[in-house]
Parts: sequence; C-alpha cells; structure tokens
Amino acid sequence: MSILAIVGAGLMGTATAWPLSDNGHQVRLVGTHLDTEIIQSCKENHYHPRLKRKLPEGVQPYFIDEIGEALRDAEIIISGVSSPGAHWIGRVIATHLQPGQKIIAVTKGLEATPDGELRLLPDVLYSELPTGLRDQVSLAAIGGPCIAGELAGRRPTHVVFASRSAEAVDALAQAFRTPYYRVRTTTDLLSLELSAALKNAYTLGVGLAAGLMEQAGGPDETGMIMDNLASALFAQGTLEIYHWLEVMGADPSFAHHLPGVGDLFVTVQGGRTVRLGRLLGMGKSFAEARQIMAGETLESAEIVAQIGIALPQMQARGQITPTDFPLLRLLVDLVVNGRRAGLPIERYLSILTV
Amino acid sequence: MSILAIVGAGLMGTATAWPLSDNGHQVRLVGTHLDTEIIQSCKENHYHPRLKRKLPEGVQPYFIDEIGEALRDAEIIISGVSSPGAHWIGRVIATHLQPGQKIIAVTKGLEATPDGELRLLPDVLYSELPTGLRDQVSLAAIGGPCIAGELAGRRPTHVVFASRSAEAVDALAQAFRTPYYRVRTTTDLLSLELSAALKNAYTLGVGLAAGLMEQAGGPDETGMIMDNLASALFAQGTLEIYHWLEVMGADPSFAHHLPGVGDLFVTVQGGRTVRLGRLLGMGKSFAEARQIMAGETLESAEIVAQIGIALPQMQARGQITPTDFPLLRLLVDLVVNGRRAGLPIERYLSILTV
Repeated sequence: MSILAIVGAGLMGTATAWPLSDNGHQVRLVGTHLDTEIIQSCKENHYHPRLKRKLPEGVQPYFIDEIGEALRDAEIIISGVSSPGAHWIGRVIATHLQPGQKIIAVTKGLEATPDGELRLLPDVLYSELPTGLRDQVSLAAIGGPCIAGELAGRRPTHVVFASRSAEAVDALAQAFRTPYYRVRTTTDLLSLELSAALKNAYTLGVGLAAGLMEQAGGPDETGMIMDNLASALFAQGTLEIYHWLEVMGADPSFAHHLPGVGDLFVTVQGGRTVRLGRLLGMGKSFAEARQIMAGETLESAEIVAQIGIALPQMQARGQITPTDFPLLRLLVDLVVNGRRAGLPIERYLSILTV
Repeated sequence: MSILAIVGAGLMGTATAWPLSDNGHQVRLVGTHLDTEIIQSCKENHYHPRLKRKLPEGVQPYFIDEIGEALRDAEIIISGVSSPGAHWIGRVIATHLQPGQKIIAVTKGLEATPDGELRLLPDVLYSELPTGLRDQVSLAAIGGPCIAGELAGRRPTHVVFASRSAEAVDALAQAFRTPYYRVRTTTDLLSLELSAALKNAYTLGVGLAAGLMEQAGGPDETGMIMDNLASALFAQGTLEIYHWLEVMGADPSFAHHLPGVGDLFVTVQGGRTVRLGRLLGMGKSFAEARQIMAGETLESAEIVAQIGIALPQMQARGQITPTDFPLLRLLVDLVVNGRRAGLPIERYLSILTV
C-alpha cells in the first residue's frame, strides 16, 4: 500500500483514483486553481460533479494551497492537468519533490521549440524541475483508449504506460493494475506520447466530415450522412500518425496499437475534439468555434498549432517534404491560418493520400 | 460511353449505378433469383426499395432469366452478389462471357480449400470460368470504406480498385471515377481482398463490446457504456489484420489504409455485422443469433468459419503460432464451436496482445 497524489481534479486525473483506491492505496486528490468548486464538492459530499460520482472511499481531496501536504511522502504523483498546464505543474511540484518520487502524466500534447523541434509534454514538465532533482525522479505517461467516466465506472479499459525507465514503469503499472484496468508497459516514451498527441489532432480531422455534411444540408432524404468521408479521413489520420512516427525516429507500429488507432477510435466517439472538428467543418472560423466552445480546453487545437510552428522548419531541414501530411496541413490552415472549410466537399477527397 | 452490367441488385452492386450513370454509361442492372421483388419495383417505378431511391435515369433493370441479353456487349460486369454467391455468379456468367470483358466484384470474402489455403473470392469466381476464357477476361475487386446508400446519394467516397492487370484496373477506375467517387488503383489484389474480408471478421469483434455491456446490465448510472473496450478490440483487429497480411505474404501497410482501418471504421458504424457481434456479446449462441437475424446474409460469420477451417492447418504447417490472432480465435470459438461469450468481461482484456 502506497501514498499517491493526483494533481489536477479534472476527469482523467480523478478517474485514476478508482483503480488506485481498489488496490488499497491511499489517494490524495489535489485540485488546481481551476478546480476549486470540484474540490469543494469533494470535501463536502465526497462527490465529483463532473464525473457525476462519489469518489472511492478513502480518497482525500486537497485545495491547491494544500499541495505541499498532499505531495509529502507520495510515492507516485499523477499529473492530471491538461497540456497548457505542463510548465505550470512542473514549477508547482518542483518545490515539493522528494528524491525517488515517480511522476506519471495523463496529458497528451506536444510543444514546439523556437527552432522547430517537437518536445513531449513529460519532457516539458521535466525541464521545469531543479537540475539536481531531475535524475532522482522518474517520468512516465499513459496512452491508449480511455474515457475517464468509463474508468471511474470500473469499465474494462486497456492502456499503455511508458517511461524511459523500465523499473519505474513496472512499479507504476503494478500500482495501477486491476482486473478492469489492464496496463501494458513500454520504455518507448517517444512513440507513445507522439501517438497520443497526434490522435487528438486527427480526431479534429475526422470530425470535419460531420460539419461538412451539415454545411451541405445535413442528412439526405434517405437519412444518409457522411460516414464514407469520415472513414477516409480516419484512414488518412492513421496513415499520417504512422508516417509521423517514422519521421520522428519513433516506432511506427504504435499507429496500429492502443495509443494510435485505439485511442483515435475512442476519441472520435464523442467529446470536445470532434465537436470542434464539426464546427470547423461547418465553415466556422477557428475564432468563432473557439467562442462557441468558450471555457473548454482545446488540446487538439494546441497540438495542431504547435505542429504548425514545427512544420516549416522540419521541411526546411529536409525532414519532411511539402506533400507529407496533407490532412495535418489542412488542420493547420483551419486552426492557425484562419481559413474556413468550404464546399464543394469533394475537394477534401483530393487531398487524401491514403 | 460504355455498356456495363451489374449482376446482383442488392445495396452495394446497385449503388455503383450512380457514378457509372453520371459518367454517361449505359447501365444494366440484373437481379439474382433473390432480387425478383427489387427488379419488379425497378421495372415498374424505377424505384429501388432497399436503397429507397429512384434509380438514375437510363439504368435498365433485368430479371435473372434475361441475363444473357444484359451481359451482351457489356465492357464491364460488376459482381454485386454476396460472398456465398461467388461460385454461383462464376457459373452463371460463364456461359455468356465474351473475350475482353472485365469483371469487378464488390464482394468481400475468403474461401478455405480442403488443405487449408485461403482463396480470394475473385479467384473463386475465376475458377468457375471455362479454361479457354480465363486469360481473356480480367478480374478486379473494390475495397475501402463505402456505405452503399451514401454512394447512391452521391456522398463523397474514397475507395481502392485492385486487379492483377494494371491496364484493366486503370480502365475500370476511369469508368467509375466521378468527383464524389474517388478511385485509387493497385495491382495488389491479394492485400486489398484480404483487408476487405478480414475487416468483416473484426467488425464482429468490435461489436462484442456492445453486447458484453448489455450482458453486464447496460449503461451505468452516469450513462457510461464500453467504448474503452470497443476501442481496444478495434486496435486489436487492426493489429491482427496487419499480422494476417504479413503471414499471407501480402503488404501489411494495407492495414492502415482505406481497405484496412478505413473499411473497419465504416463497418463498425452500424449494420448487420456489428448487430451480430452485439448478439454474440450478449451471450447468445451463434445459432440463436442466426435465428434472430434470419434472412440476412452474414458474410462476417462465413469469413470467420472459413478462417476457422484454415487456422489449424496453417498452424500445423508452421505458418502461424498458437498465440497468433487471439481475437480471431475467440470469434471462431463463438461462431463455429458454439461457445457463448460470458462474464466477467475483464477476461476479454486478457486475450488482447495489442
């Protein structure tokens, strides 16, 4: 039995409390400054309003100003913040970290450096830690298809943990594994994080089909929608993930495993990323869509924006050619360059290389 | 402008009439003995009752006993029969074939020979043709995500045509291509047909998740279903298609293109194959599920059964190991060996290798 601290009381971070608690661990749930109402509810009624469930017994909620107390002697720290919070959480936990602690992130994202290198979010977090401590803590990340509410409902879920340290990832997996939460492990953090981040971008791409259909007048008189187009976009996304992994020197087989196609499939089933894709497909500008979805974290758009920074520099270095990644380039046009998706729809078929 | 004949007036065969007709071709639609009512309706009202649409103008309907007239001078014959009809259509058209005709099949399936080789359906059809004619006609097949009703609604659709003859496949693609029906071509018939057939089997696998959820009591109190499990099964299916292609000496990259993951994605969106998978997941025996779906062609079950014949012999020959294809082996158990899917659900996670 260990002490574990989850930092970030959103859906995904909090959901990990179920397997951890079922394994008999002591779980501390720390809200960020955005989670004050959630933690208030947890403290008063032991109820998480976004997951719409009582927390497992024994989970202790903490406000952000109590984080020092929450992290003390925690063997494992779960980073449950969304991608814009990667720097923040690094800085916040830095002052409390103790040697030997393990950090595992549920966040998916990429950050472009000024010279167009794409950094993984665990490495962004790592860069905020004091130099002396970096070698004394280990970093890991979670990939694979996982809707948080299903995990909190103890629904069968199959994910992959990755850390560059084999020892750390095995210890982490052991802490989390339950019969309903199956954890495979890998030391290939690069491939896992790239797949997990890219699937968010390509979910936007699949979501375009629903919006383009609406822009063209909605379902037809026999009820037909545009699943053929959505499926072609899905295949293109899978292919581009495969190709990204190759270009980045990662293992392309992740594209047809849980963190690639599995996670892409589950993300396409619903949620804010496909909703954003649909709005863009309807012909809304990104600024308009952003306003319609005010208050929601749009990690997918952030990933597209970061890749949009890296793309021209990768091309200048000869890492990629101008015809690589046509679907991602379309997304950059929509999300970054202010272009609107327009009719005729057929022209979207012609960008596909799949 | 050419004359083309579609044999089989089901959904998919008939839907090809739209791009062909839009390209100015003369299209003849021949119903099989199972399509008599459909052809009656087409002759009387030019209305296809299953597609719920008027046929494009100029499409000529034919009863099966008029097939000789329909095939005469047709440059292209489209085989629109389902997989159990592959022998039948070969024998039926054999007596009418003229040298130079091209045959393209929409059917997806595999047939095991008595010694456990898996044959492609176009080759099954081919084997029924008179020896003297075989070298004078060319065979092709269509793969990739295509819901027939969407194609008939001129919704954007992206598919792949394959024929071992580059010349034939280019001519075929030219006859079919429209702005809404994009056709890529390949001479790799093996990879295309394997992917297209296998995706039917694995759609059954993904469908199991919905049934297992019902067997376990349905959506939970917060509305959570089992998309995490469905997604893990989807990833496993993609991985196994990749591995099948390797084992069969085909090109595994088809797994992450239109005929693999694209077609798997669209098939999982709905229809009889996921319905059958759901029934099996609910714990129905295949015999019970078969009865519930009486009258429906279950190509997916036929493909699983054929692979079930080939598997032990492939294993005896050392082509595959006993741990290969765990999801397909589960499907063989359910469809062929009369086993029922049972609880606890968690044990289905443990069969996955993804």
